[in-house]
Amino acid sequence: MSGPTDIPPIRPRDLNRQVLLTGRPEAIPEARHFTIAEASVPVPGPGEFLVRNIYLSVDPAQRGWASSEANYSQPVPLGNPMRALAVARVDQSRAEGISEGDFLYGWFGWQDFCVARPEAIMTRATRALPLAQFAGLLGLNGLTAHLALTRLGRPGTGDTLAVSTAAGGVGSLVGQIGKALGCRTIGLTGSDEKAALCREVYGYDVALNYKSVDVPEALKAAAPEGIDIFFDNTGGAILDAALRQMSVGGRVVQCGTASVASWTPPPTGPRAEREVLTRRLIWSGFVIFDHAAHFAAAAEDLAAWHASGQIDLRLEIKTGIELAPGSIADLYAGRNLGKRLIQIV
Amino acid sequence: MSGPTDIPPIRPRDLNRQVLLTGRPEAIPEARHFTIAEASVPVPGPGEFLVRNIYLSVDPAQRGWASSEANYSQPVPLGNPMRALAVARVDQSRAEGISEGDFLYGWFGWQDFCVARPEAIMTRATRALPLAQFAGLLGLNGLTAHLALTRLGRPGTGDTLAVSTAAGGVGSLVGQIGKALGCRTIGLTGSDEKAALCREVYGYDVALNYKSVDVPEALKAAAPEGIDIFFDNTGGAILDAALRQMSVGGRVVQCGTASVASWTPPPTGPRAEREVLTRRLIWSGFVIFDHAAHFAAAAEDLAAWHASGQIDLRLEIKTGIELAPGSIADLYAGRNLGKRLIQIV
Repeated sequence: MSGPTDIPPIRPRDLNRQVLLTGRPEAIPEARHFTIAEASVPVPGPGEFLVRNIYLSVDPAQRGWASSEANYSQPVPLGNPMRALAVARVDQSRAEGISEGDFLYGWFGWQDFCVARPEAIMTRATRALPLAQFAGLLGLNGLTAHLALTRLGRPGTGDTLAVSTAAGGVGSLVGQIGKALGCRTIGLTGSDEKAALCREVYGYDVALNYKSVDVPEALKAAAPEGIDIFFDNTGGAILDAALRQMSVGGRVVQCGTASVASWTPPPTGPRAEREVLTRRLIWSGFVIFDHAAHFAAAAEDLAAWHASGQIDLRLEIKTGIELAPGSIADLYAGRNLGKRLIQIV
Repeated sequence: MSGPTDIPPIRPRDLNRQVLLTGRPEAIPEARHFTIAEASVPVPGPGEFLVRNIYLSVDPAQRGWASSEANYSQPVPLGNPMRALAVARVDQSRAEGISEGDFLYGWFGWQDFCVARPEAIMTRATRALPLAQFAGLLGLNGLTAHLALTRLGRPGTGDTLAVSTAAGGVGSLVGQIGKALGCRTIGLTGSDEKAALCREVYGYDVALNYKSVDVPEALKAAAPEGIDIFFDNTGGAILDAALRQMSVGGRVVQCGTASVASWTPPPTGPRAEREVLTRRLIWSGFVIFDHAAHFAAAAEDLAAWHASGQIDLRLEIKTGIELAPGSIADLYAGRNLGKRLIQIV
């Protein structure tokens, strides 16, 4: 069995730096909601293992985990390390089947060290891929892009697929997987630079900078016969426009709502029910954890598409745990080019 | 083969009274948008047949057919008889397989006579049921209730099913079919009289008069663990409340938008995408004509449930073609108790 490639050196440490959630954000978590503190390195008990984190994942979903609003997961308690996925190396193990030196991708939090049980593991990093890609191409981004598109979007050859946050960690993969499955792809993104990336790197047939075009008109021009699948990471005005350009029987995959800063109170928008009815849409919500039974098969597909050069994920790796606190707000402000990771040094 | 029962006498006529659409409604079609005129009785050509209408159907969907707005069917041209389903007797036939004296349910319009081709037939009235029920229990109402609930709502035993316009032609059948399939049923309707009907006749476990309760609070109390299926005929504020009480993985079946008077410009409401996402809803639109391949099987089920006493449809039969023009507005104002038909005399 081949292992991960591009493994960075790890500096020994005596203390565990932790990014604690110390303020409850009303909307997007910002640097001021976190505090970095040091604790002693924890010791694994029976059935547990100790990992040393290497790459911390920064994900839009962390906004929901930091919020006190009802959500699909429990809020992170104030004073606790921020919930996060990470790629880590096992330092000590008292858990069966897990050995020192294994590389894992799992729920290890924004910190240097974590004691965990095997349930915290999402996947094991056993393939010949750069180590960081286990938190990207084969991580939450890749699994989300694949499973949300294929299981909810149900793409068919010749379908027109539109994607919001088209250059992002999930969106860029959705566009590439859509192409691999024979779709015509339209990407919506927030700068000319990202639109160029969409066309030149992610293979979108059309890329639109939503800040510089009239989105309803541009979608009508780009998809004159209608959008068959709208893969939405933004919500808001882009969703409103896409709903009104869907083809009959179109699928709307709600994977995120990044454009809406606060849901308290819920913002208003043009009512959607007539579009759902007359266009016979199927509008469904995607949360990755519902689809865990399909992770292994999806990872096979992703690795195969990667090996054949059909998909790749641009990583934006920032160095230093002190950059973690401000990084969620960066995503929501569009200040990232691809999937962001924090590399611990 | 047994035939329909309760066939009313039909008076001979020399002229064809037609309810013409002569004004284009901005919102709900009212009596003033129609004109009753007389024409000569048409003569069937080769492959055609002549029917004499007996029961004219009045349906919420006629609003869309009378509108000039983009919709799932072409607008009725001004000056033409209003598009409508009807139960009719064949007077003359030059079409294969159709004989004088056959009873048919099909697209015969709001008029005394119609020359049609076999494509206009929805179903043939060949079962032992009151003739009017072929435009109700086995007609658009029954087929819609059955296919929208089972194909989009996917009810399971023990599911909580909420229905808007719960006492109406479709809603009352949805509630009863839901009970037959093992659901707990909650009906929303617009008067205490209809709420009583829901409880006493249609077997709803809970019936709410939405005009006299706080709908969000009442739904929370009625479905403390969440609504698994919301069968929506109204849209608007009732939908907004139901979306926020759905269980994870819940299905929202959009079958109508009766509470919204006009879509030009689209009214606003609280944004729905976060509910779709966090509750992982499947929100889909139902238009009966997409499901024609399933009509025969659905009619079998409906007849069997009726025969075993599990479902029935209350008809409200008004007499006289002159009552047709104002009857669509009556539905939207809630001035009907059950499925409305116009009997021609």
